Amino acid sequence: MIAFEYPLNEKNRSYLRFEFLFSQLKMSISFEHVNDSTIFFKALLELVELAERSDIRHDLIKDLRSLSEQMRKWLNHDQVDQKTVTDLISEIEELIHAVLILPKQLRFFKTNRFLTSLKQRFFIPGGTCNFDLPQFHFWLASDLGKRQQDAQSWFSHFTSLEKALTLFLKIKRSQAVATMQTAKNGFYQAEVEKCGFIVVKVDKKQGVYPVISGHNQRYSIRFMSAKSETNTLDSIEFEQMCC
Amino acid sequence: MIAFEYPLNEKNRSYLRFEFLFSQLKMSISFEHVNDSTIFFKALLELVELAERSDIRHDLIKDLRSLSEQMRKWLNHDQVDQKTVTDLISEIEELIHAVLILPKQLRFFKTNRFLTSLKQRFFIPGGTCNFDLPQFHFWLASDLGKRQQDAQSWFSHFTSLEKALTLFLKIKRSQAVATMQTAKNGFYQAEVEKCGFIVVKVDKKQGVYPVISGHNQRYSIRFMSAKSETNTLDSIEFEQMCC
Repeated sequence: MIAFEYPLNEKNRSYLRFEFLFSQLKMSISFEHVNDSTIFFKALLELVELAERSDIRHDLIKDLRSLSEQMRKWLNHDQVDQKTVTDLISEIEELIHAVLILPKQLRFFKTNRFLTSLKQRFFIPGGTCNFDLPQFHFWLASDLGKRQQDAQSWFSHFTSLEKALTLFLKIKRSQAVATMQTAKNGFYQAEVEKCGFIVVKVDKKQGVYPVISGHNQRYSIRFMSAKSETNTLDSIEFEQMCC
Repeated sequence: MIAFEYPLNEKNRSYLRFEFLFSQLKMSISFEHVNDSTIFFKALLELVELAERSDIRHDLIKDLRSLSEQMRKWLNHDQVDQKTVTDLISEIEELIHAVLILPKQLRFFKTNRFLTSLKQRFFIPGGTCNFDLPQFHFWLASDLGKRQQDAQSWFSHFTSLEKALTLFLKIKRSQAVATMQTAKNGFYQAEVEKCGFIVVKVDKKQGVYPVISGHNQRYSIRFMSAKSETNTLDSIEFEQMCC
């Protein structure tokens, strides 16, 4: 099975984009492989760029607060594991506090000369040659220990945001109920309520991928054949979740 | 020792940029490591973008022809290894022919729907999420053998250019003579003749990197301290080559 996700509003689009970049960053921060440093800086600088553009912190704090309120209500039910829920509420409250002080921390990226010089060049095609960025070339040749230490210290400015976002999306995904659906002639549409993003899982063997569109209350899926890049006319079975 | 290169004109700037992207592409084309596919597509699509913007082929053919003529003159000297030089001339002539037919081949990248859809998103920060490019997400989940085959077939459109450029730069670098120089108070300037790019090698232990500027006949180096990111006032010993 291969999973595809699709955000139904700007806020969730931003959440999934940050999550994607965080995962790239964490997969490369050890610098074990020759290509890791390029991926690390690409992801880090894109995160800085996105964080400057949109206020993900504001949205996330609001969502975490409403999640925490929702959980407090659960505590009134006897069937609920009180300890687990109380722990989760404390974890959420801590993360809310940590994300609240973030704006101050992100200023770091505007004042760090090394990173700002890299950021200017990283979004230009082929713009990170050794003659474009001699200081970067020098840094890449420095000891692994020093590079790992620098990377960890830069990432530390995002740690609370990463933790909060990961927890929030984990809870959202775990709360959703999966249902099996059929796309007749490769097409499917549905109405949804209070849904941030949808998850579509298809068997790889069917050789199709979903092109999803939609927003807030409504979305549609058109399955495309991976071979011919045209709309498939087969009936496609797939698993669906609204998160 | 750590080597820094600096091109003294647009043509050589383009050569070194292509060489850098070709090296990234070759380091990732096996898809052995989890980050390789991102690097591969980044390098491939940047190459397509640069190839569309500047006519590297035209410049390279001209340079290879003049190199071949220069070598034919060498054949008049008895001290020269006739076989080696004749072989090199044939190799150059073959590559000239291969690069000449390139324009036709590069059209492929404009007509391949999969790659053009990726190219539109790859230069946007965080623009390659699974919801941005479901077809890419599907491709990434396909068998390693299929992915390697696709990658080799896409790269094949650049193979002759890569070979020709690599050979040209290899000869240029091997023809240059290295000299030791001193930058008093961290500063050095020099005049050069018929020089495409310069190579500066410094001992890593000195903790400095060169900020080079210049064009065609003249260039200057200002060594910066890697620690403080300010101009160093020490005298710096370095190796220099004009290629």
